[in-house]
Amino acid sequence: MTPTLPLSAAALPRAPLRPLDEALAELLSSASPLVGADSVSTFDADGRVLAVDLVSSLDVPGHDNSSMDGYAVRSADFLQTDVLQVTQRIAAGSHGHALEPLAAARIFTGAPIPPGADAVVMQEDTEALSDGRVRLLTPPSPGQWVRRRGEDVARGAVVLPRGERLSPASLGLAASIGFARLQVSRPVRVALFSTGDELVMPGDVAPADMPVGAIYNSNRFFLRALLMRLGCQVTDMGIVPDRLDATVQSLAEASAQHDLILTSGGVSVGEEDHIKPAVQALGELTLWQLAIKPGKPFAYGRIQSASTAPRAHFIGLPGNPVSSFVTFMLLVRPFLLRLQGATELAPQALPAVARFSWPKADKRREFLRVRRLPSGGLELYANQSSGVLTSAVWGDGLVDNPPGQTIGPGDVVRYLPFASLLC
Amino acid sequence: MTPTLPLSAAALPRAPLRPLDEALAELLSSASPLVGADSVSTFDADGRVLAVDLVSSLDVPGHDNSSMDGYAVRSADFLQTDVLQVTQRIAAGSHGHALEPLAAARIFTGAPIPPGADAVVMQEDTEALSDGRVRLLTPPSPGQWVRRRGEDVARGAVVLPRGERLSPASLGLAASIGFARLQVSRPVRVALFSTGDELVMPGDVAPADMPVGAIYNSNRFFLRALLMRLGCQVTDMGIVPDRLDATVQSLAEASAQHDLILTSGGVSVGEEDHIKPAVQALGELTLWQLAIKPGKPFAYGRIQSASTAPRAHFIGLPGNPVSSFVTFMLLVRPFLLRLQGATELAPQALPAVARFSWPKADKRREFLRVRRLPSGGLELYANQSSGVLTSAVWGDGLVDNPPGQTIGPGDVVRYLPFASLLC
Repeated sequence: MTPTLPLSAAALPRAPLRPLDEALAELLSSASPLVGADSVSTFDADGRVLAVDLVSSLDVPGHDNSSMDGYAVRSADFLQTDVLQVTQRIAAGSHGHALEPLAAARIFTGAPIPPGADAVVMQEDTEALSDGRVRLLTPPSPGQWVRRRGEDVARGAVVLPRGERLSPASLGLAASIGFARLQVSRPVRVALFSTGDELVMPGDVAPADMPVGAIYNSNRFFLRALLMRLGCQVTDMGIVPDRLDATVQSLAEASAQHDLILTSGGVSVGEEDHIKPAVQALGELTLWQLAIKPGKPFAYGRIQSASTAPRAHFIGLPGNPVSSFVTFMLLVRPFLLRLQGATELAPQALPAVARFSWPKADKRREFLRVRRLPSGGLELYANQSSGVLTSAVWGDGLVDNPPGQTIGPGDVVRYLPFASLLC
Repeated sequence: MTPTLPLSAAALPRAPLRPLDEALAELLSSASPLVGADSVSTFDADGRVLAVDLVSSLDVPGHDNSSMDGYAVRSADFLQTDVLQVTQRIAAGSHGHALEPLAAARIFTGAPIPPGADAVVMQEDTEALSDGRVRLLTPPSPGQWVRRRGEDVARGAVVLPRGERLSPASLGLAASIGFARLQVSRPVRVALFSTGDELVMPGDVAPADMPVGAIYNSNRFFLRALLMRLGCQVTDMGIVPDRLDATVQSLAEASAQHDLILTSGGVSVGEEDHIKPAVQALGELTLWQLAIKPGKPFAYGRIQSASTAPRAHFIGLPGNPVSSFVTFMLLVRPFLLRLQGATELAPQALPAVARFSWPKADKRREFLRVRRLPSGGLELYANQSSGVLTSAVWGDGLVDNPPGQTIGPGDVVRYLPFASLLC
């Protein structure tokens, strides 16, 4: 039974909730791309962000060539005869001479088309005759099985632009135009720590011996993995005790050598949190109450250990595991990509059909843990509490649900697959 | 102009085209999970496959605790008064004593709920009075802001099953129940090489000096990156000359130390290919003509250097870059996951709406390079030639188009995002 006395929440001044998009835009405006690029082997550049436009100095393919094993022919010859003299043999890596009329060149995949020929008949569509000639079993059409010079890449073209995050396919493309090394932005150096006297590291205390109120630190495990997937150099600074002096010292040390200091816990309004005064002692801090669920408290600041020292970014994530996980994906991921100079920051969002009910609207924008059914629809994890990390393991993505919105079966929702948020 | 003589392709016997699903099932039936597991730090287990069920030996949370900073109260007290005496203070990591009637406990996020209390009123919904008491500004409902013991994980539950591929969130979950180390299947050892005398390594020859018929090797760059993303230990064996003796020697050497030998090129029907006789000299080989486009030729075999030597898997991918890329994702990726004992092998497929025309049906199942429009529909890369790697860089996924199927704007198609095929 809930009493209904006329006491309003409005009796106390509240920090206004900030819309996510507004907070993200402000965060990104603080993220100037880092100065300095690395030259790395193209083999090792997967996931890195290109620091310069990649311009091709050649056509790919460099010559018209065969995309099949077979015979290069003059297609018009077929109007006269289906049997041709084989006058040359062109393997990949070699090159032939001009093809005479009513003749064929034995040719292999990747080998250049000889002058005069305009089509390739694949081997399976031919019959080798005992006298060395070849019979064509299908009529060749001009251009058939010929890969044109420059079809893949034209000389002078920007093949991959600055700011492109490199994928396996783009490494292959860079190699195909002769780049053995690539200029990429340097990795972001991140110092990672957790705060909270209740935290115990797995391995330090056995489950049976856990004291009342103690919990295992889990945030640092997934935060580190998420940072590694984004190509960061991570320094793990461990668990910082809930004391102001210890927190100030950790932050000052970290700021000298890192681009970003990332913490989880210690950013809510409770007085046990020493993150705020510690960051403020070393620089500036903005505490945000984000209008999202999970993930309301979020802190951004800049710190430096001395006026002449480098200035590091500070981001404080909420301590609840799911809140920490979600705010990392929505805010820290694009922030880190921007620091690397990447142009594509938004995760892939797809329309999908809900196969569940979410009857209670929230005033905050919600990120619900869901997974795809074999039918293509989405099912909801029953417990959407932010303390329940199992929802993020069970799920394969988030539904981005606008404020004040309920969801019913059959509704089309905005689905963010983890696959595109985690890399 | 195409001549139309009555010559039929059926005049020659052809190898029958094999459906992809049938070929994949046969390939997977050869992939027994590797023997042997590694014990790795939970910090380093992202992407690895769990070798044993992970069973929790504790409840998470271990005790009912507060999910907010605020005051733990007896909710029924609010029927009598909205002002409570603050009789104790419970920080995260400490624990309180039984809460008296008409009293409140100052409590912080993560701290255990004291006996007697059944709700938490968050700090923002209270007013601290000058005499040390607290006024509740909103009525508490039973259970409010309380995280229940075992809500996340119940003791004895299998939290992560054997065969689960670990993600950042699952590392966090494993840590939250006290696992500092995890038993995971060992990495797959893969020897990677390319064949083809036309291949030149980027950096070895400048673009301006490329001889006629020469092309830069690009497949090894993306294949290596794809293998690394799947957690493989990759040995790069370079480009093997187009000679039988060299090919046999490379395969024999590689088979002794690797689980899989992966090549690209040399599996089509051309007589310049020495892969087939080389693999056959050392074991067995099946050449498949897959009923897919791109990616028709595909080879699978087993080889060993001597009767007492270990037997390695052999997979030969087509040499065309896009064919090689697509067959890796569709066949090699699930094969490697199965070798690691993973249970989830299929990529994420989603229904999506085509915003393009594909008017010419093919008898083979096609994998078209597409990318998502901001509207959520899909657009098609204009040049779907298998030599054109730019399509895989431009695109963000594949449309899996059944044999004999045309596509028109508005049709719902099966979309495979690269994000789920590349990890």
